[in-house]
Order: sequence, then C-alpha cells, then structure tokens
Amino acid sequence: MTRYKGYLIDLDGTMYAGTQVIPGAAEFIDRLNAANVPYLFVTNNSSRTPEQVADKLVKMGIRTTPENVFTTSRATAQFIHDEKPGASIYVIGEDGILEALAEQGLEVVTHENPDYVVTGIDRGITYEKLAGACLSVRNGARFISTNGDIAIPTERGFMPGNGSLTSVVTVSTETQPIFIGKPEPVIMEQAMAVLGTSKEETIMVGDYYDTDILAGINIGIDTLLVHTGVTQREFLERYDIQPTHTRNNLNEWEL
Amino acid sequence: MTRYKGYLIDLDGTMYAGTQVIPGAAEFIDRLNAANVPYLFVTNNSSRTPEQVADKLVKMGIRTTPENVFTTSRATAQFIHDEKPGASIYVIGEDGILEALAEQGLEVVTHENPDYVVTGIDRGITYEKLAGACLSVRNGARFISTNGDIAIPTERGFMPGNGSLTSVVTVSTETQPIFIGKPEPVIMEQAMAVLGTSKEETIMVGDYYDTDILAGINIGIDTLLVHTGVTQREFLERYDIQPTHTRNNLNEWEL
Repeated sequence: MTRYKGYLIDLDGTMYAGTQVIPGAAEFIDRLNAANVPYLFVTNNSSRTPEQVADKLVKMGIRTTPENVFTTSRATAQFIHDEKPGASIYVIGEDGILEALAEQGLEVVTHENPDYVVTGIDRGITYEKLAGACLSVRNGARFISTNGDIAIPTERGFMPGNGSLTSVVTVSTETQPIFIGKPEPVIMEQAMAVLGTSKEETIMVGDYYDTDILAGINIGIDTLLVHTGVTQREFLERYDIQPTHTRNNLNEWEL
Repeated sequence: MTRYKGYLIDLDGTMYAGTQVIPGAAEFIDRLNAANVPYLFVTNNSSRTPEQVADKLVKMGIRTTPENVFTTSRATAQFIHDEKPGASIYVIGEDGILEALAEQGLEVVTHENPDYVVTGIDRGITYEKLAGACLSVRNGARFISTNGDIAIPTERGFMPGNGSLTSVVTVSTETQPIFIGKPEPVIMEQAMAVLGTSKEETIMVGDYYDTDILAGINIGIDTLLVHTGVTQREFLERYDIQPTHTRNNLNEWEL
C-alpha cells in the first residue's frame, strides 16, 4: 500500500543535471512502475516534444515513455483548446509548442489578428517575431506565456529563459500574459486531470522550491523537495510554508 | 533679445511625423539660425548616426547639420568614456550606437567579459546577442541602456522599442540598467554641456510630456510643450507639474 496514488515529478535537478542522471532517479521510476503507481513528468520546457523528452530520459537509463511527459506546451495547447477550439495562434516558440498546438487542432498563423499570442522559448527569435506578437496583442489577441522562467542553466552559464523573452511583449504592450507553467496552477491542474487522482492522493516531487514546491502548494497537494538541484536544505528556512517532505535524494524516499 | 540662449529640441512629433515635416518646424529652425541661438536636437533614437538624422531633416526642408544632432548613442558613448576611457563594450544595437562608441575610442567586443553591456534598438536581434548580454551582465559588466522607450510608432503600428528589448536582460539577470535617454538626466546634462548655456538660459521643446517635458523638469530647466504629437492639451491636466509653456505649434512660439 503506497502513501500516494499519483506522482507529479519535475525533470531538471530531480531526474537529471545537464546530461547526467541523478543518483536514485532511475530506481525511483522503476519502483513506481513496479508498484503500478501512475506518474507524470511535469516540465516547463516548451521547446521539446514529449517524444524528445522521453528519448533523452531513456538514454540516461530512466525507463519511461512519452505518455508520461506532461510539458507546458501540452498544457498551453489544452488550455487554449478548452477556451476556444480551433483558435488561431501567433507563436513564438520551437518544436514542442508547435507540435502541441497542432495536436489540439489549433491553427498557427503569421498575421497580426490571431485569437491568441503564445510565447515559448525560441532560440531563433527575431525582431519581426517579437513585432508580430506585440502588434497582435495590441490588436486584442489573448496573451499566453508557456512559463515565466527567467533563465536556463547551461554549460555556458544562465541563458535567457522564456520569461525574459516574454517580457518584450509585456513591457512593450503593457499587457500581462497568463502564465501556464509551474508554479502557476494551470499546468498542475491539467496534469492531475490526466493522472486521474484526487488532491489528497497526489504528490509533487521536485528540487526547486520557487517552481516545483510552490506549484504543489498553490494547488493544495503534498510536496516532496529533494536536495539534488536548486534548493538546498539551508535555504529552506527563508520560506514560510515548508514542503510536506524533504529528502537528500530519491533513494531515501519510500513510496 | 531672445528669452532663451539655448534650445534643446525633440524630433519625432516636434519636427516631423513619420516622413512629414510638422507645420512651423522648418520656420522655427530658420528663426533660431537667423537669431544665432544655438540648439541641439535631443533624440532617443539610437539606431541612426547624426549624419543620417540631419540628412532626413534636410530632405524635409529643415536647414540643419549633423553637429546639431545629439543622439542617445552619442550621450551613451560620452557617459562611458567619462567613466572609463577605452572601455570594452558588448553591444546590442545598430549603426548609430556602433559609430558613436567608435568615435569615443571605445572597444566593441563579442566575448562575455566586457566592462559594459550597452543595449540600443536592434532590428537584427538574435537569441545569441541576448544571451551574450545576459552572460556579460552576470559576469559583472556594467549595464547601460540607451533609452527606456517601450514602443516605436510606425506605419504598421507600435513596434517593440529598446526599453522592451532591454527588459530581456533586466528580467533574466535581475539587474537594472542605467538609462541614458530622455526623461533621464544623463542625455540632457550632456547636451547642455555641448550647448554651453546655463539652466536658466536653456529650454526643452517637445511634444511628449513623459519623455521630453519630464526630461526638462528632471534637470530643472524651462519647457515648451507643443501639441503637434503625443500629449494633447486635454491630457495635460493629469500631470501635477505643468510645462513652463504650451503652444499648438511652433509658429505660435516667439523666440
């Protein structure tokens, strides 16, 4: 009898660091599989498709499938589909968001009168793309951002994240977007709906208080902070609301 | 005997609108020339060189020269030269800022350990340029922005201004830049130094309260708001501090 019937699990800092699997991560997923406990990886990465994410995990020795990957792109597409099926979308973003929107039957357009503007990380960003997004928002398009992450850790250092690219449109049009990714509730509520578990039965697992743990707190589910990434034990005391559980790594966690 | 011995004059909305000269503008400059009153055009446009700006004005029938054009790029280069002659600069920007920095003997570099990061409007913006700026600021470079303008009026609508591009670096690095352009004091104080007039002798002329008039107020000089551009008469009442003078157009202004 496991304590939780469903797991929402962060990737970067929880499953891997850069291209290295984190000790205990692969075994943790094996234990979930063996116990038949459903789980979803919940990630703010909007650029990769679930297939690409699962492929990376499998290559690291984590036995999982694309069906277990819930990206902010998937959440964004679902959110728009629920509001307006078949809506037209002006997109700043890469493969992950483009594929997710297409899968929901949403129409990606390049003109400046779309129903929605969606911004995701886009390493092919241009002034023209930003201009089109600004003109569209000024024309009344609903403004959605896949996530507010300000920086992306890489071997080179902290690169600009989607939250910083989004700010061009926010600042220029003086319009705030709806953020979909962690710590916002949208991605979490959708992931729980896919998992099919109740709030009492579900736990959020992650390494970063400000996104993962706060996301769990924001929708009122239990949380497990693992000290394998950003938020080390000594920084926890600055937070009023503590995680439900903390562990040094996932080997220390019993299902 | 003229009331003011030196004029600081805005361009867009004061001298021209798009490609059209504003009625009274050319005659106003002719009257300044005839009365031997020194003046400078003070512009937040960082992309054009003084030669390019003067060329545009002359083609519209405004008889002026590049020496009368004080761009925010010129002010930025002067500011850095005053702080650190020969400094190395990582630049996001176009011709105007590149030429101005070179004229001050500053070194434009592409590595990520410069003395300064300077951002100006750059219609050739790329993720790599933004990443280099973010990495440089994180490495300790002093962060300077030519201006905080959030939007640029064009025939197509309001395009992203330098203030919105700058925000990528501000948001990603959580570091505020020093803004050089109007309404900040840096560009105004430098322009007055070039003009060689005292505060009591100098007036700022412009169409936009939030940049032009506020710039004058911020450094304590008299101001003339002309209702030929952004700030129409009916919007003035929302401001606590009023311009020293207001006119419908420059034909109504006696030197």
